[in-house]
Amino acid sequence: MTLRDVPFRPIDGDVTIRVRAAGICGTDLQILQGYAAFSGIPGHEFVGVVEAVSAPDDARWLGRRVVGEINVGCGRCAFCRSGTKEHCTDRTVVGIRGRDGAFAELLSLPAANLHGVPDAVDDRAAVFVEPVAAACRVLEQIDVAGRRAAVVGDGRMGLLVAQVLRTRAPDVTVFGRHARKLTIARQLGLGTHDPAAPDPPHAFDIVVDVTGRADGLHRALALVRPRGVVVLKSTFHGEAALETWPIVVDEVSLIGSRCGPFPAALDLLASGQVTVAPLVSRVAALEEHEAALSQARRELKVIFGMPGANLPGV
Amino acid sequence: MTLRDVPFRPIDGDVTIRVRAAGICGTDLQILQGYAAFSGIPGHEFVGVVEAVSAPDDARWLGRRVVGEINVGCGRCAFCRSGTKEHCTDRTVVGIRGRDGAFAELLSLPAANLHGVPDAVDDRAAVFVEPVAAACRVLEQIDVAGRRAAVVGDGRMGLLVAQVLRTRAPDVTVFGRHARKLTIARQLGLGTHDPAAPDPPHAFDIVVDVTGRADGLHRALALVRPRGVVVLKSTFHGEAALETWPIVVDEVSLIGSRCGPFPAALDLLASGQVTVAPLVSRVAALEEHEAALSQARRELKVIFGMPGANLPGV
Repeated sequence: MTLRDVPFRPIDGDVTIRVRAAGICGTDLQILQGYAAFSGIPGHEFVGVVEAVSAPDDARWLGRRVVGEINVGCGRCAFCRSGTKEHCTDRTVVGIRGRDGAFAELLSLPAANLHGVPDAVDDRAAVFVEPVAAACRVLEQIDVAGRRAAVVGDGRMGLLVAQVLRTRAPDVTVFGRHARKLTIARQLGLGTHDPAAPDPPHAFDIVVDVTGRADGLHRALALVRPRGVVVLKSTFHGEAALETWPIVVDEVSLIGSRCGPFPAALDLLASGQVTVAPLVSRVAALEEHEAALSQARRELKVIFGMPGANLPGV
Repeated sequence: MTLRDVPFRPIDGDVTIRVRAAGICGTDLQILQGYAAFSGIPGHEFVGVVEAVSAPDDARWLGRRVVGEINVGCGRCAFCRSGTKEHCTDRTVVGIRGRDGAFAELLSLPAANLHGVPDAVDDRAAVFVEPVAAACRVLEQIDVAGRRAAVVGDGRMGLLVAQVLRTRAPDVTVFGRHARKLTIARQLGLGTHDPAAPDPPHAFDIVVDVTGRADGLHRALALVRPRGVVVLKSTFHGEAALETWPIVVDEVSLIGSRCGPFPAALDLLASGQVTVAPLVSRVAALEEHEAALSQARRELKVIFGMPGANLPGV
């Protein structure tokens, strides 16, 4: 079965979006390995144009280029009523849980989840709104201003998180193990740690682990100072063997971090404070999804681009 | 070798304290099993009377009944200069690291670490100042007011933490597995969870794990709500196998918590907001330390009481 073979399943009350481009994320690769027991169409980073609406009130979205928040809550629980639908127990999540995703020509989503995309954000940048929003979530959770910050992981998410932290922290150091990706980090103006040098122990106020591996958390805990903060930004499946006593003795805070604010992400991309061009390794057609997903395991960002999408420089 | 056989080793510049009573804590039991590679006299919960001083300025402490903060910093590093000597890299810690402890007749400590004990706090209560201060640390780290709070662990530290949380939170539920200790929790006016009933999933805003076991952390993570806080209050040695992805998906904060403010602890004990009488299982003489330490592995609080100490009701 290819992604094209799954028929479009519109959801009652939603708008229908014609996808222009969609990015492959680590979570998609995990889902294809069985995580979350999700059997629908994956893909939750996208930009598209609204093609049809269910409700007359939503007609203003018709023809607009949009990105979309990925959590759809029940609308009734305490989380939904307090504006945190991403923690609704009954939520569906685009391409992750109970709702088809964006690796398709058409996508169904409630109008309430949509954000219009300004002209300053082209399709290539718009694909990154969802992960940049997730990176911006860190700024909502902790005070980064003036702190010594490190990012463990030099992949696509690491290079976004580092750029977002740099909007508040004077210098941000990326720890990775891929010379090629660290070179791109430096091209983005980020500091990098020499993979051949020993890690500076307890040198950072804030360390964000975006490796999605157990050893990333270990490394982050060794890099953070006493009373510092480690942010867990990527999911890792399987058990990590963790010594917890240093967390107690050093009074470290370990904070899980997931989805974030789309308006902040659109602002950072429109103003160029977050740059995505060097992160795009390849644009693939939907028909090539097997090769594209395989390449996404090794490369930075691989994007599905539909005919007519504005994906400059590729 | 018995504890009595270790000669008193006064430290230059310190005051000398004649110990009146000292409590056995889980950390002491771990130290005796090899934790922290500490080979001196253990014991860090104590009350005593200042018997000698090194500096004329410290003469005002002579003859006073005191408790003492256990961390002694270098006095020069950024942590010491900011008043957080408990994170000084070169610190010594009474009975834990580089400095003899209180399971002895005499104890050496800098005068700067001392707090006078008011008459309203008898020797039995004063022994609990250090662990109650550690419990009060949670109130410095997170806002407990009006939150649904749970404590996992029904041991001596759990029953102190629960009482301290109750000074700010309307109701606090203790989760344990010892009927006898849970009965004492109820005598203290605390809520308890029936060990035979299933745990309510994600029911608490704040969960403090004081079990000192890997499964305590697992249980705490299952009890806390999305965006809630789990406080790790006791050290556990050895690796815990931990699934970290629920921390990310639920955006849980996991916060290590160690030493706390002595003045707050003295206030809570003096006012009776924290009650210790039901927690004391036995008072032992120093000569009986082997039996006492063994009993401390099963019972709530076991205290070494010196001749003349004021330990009512025992």
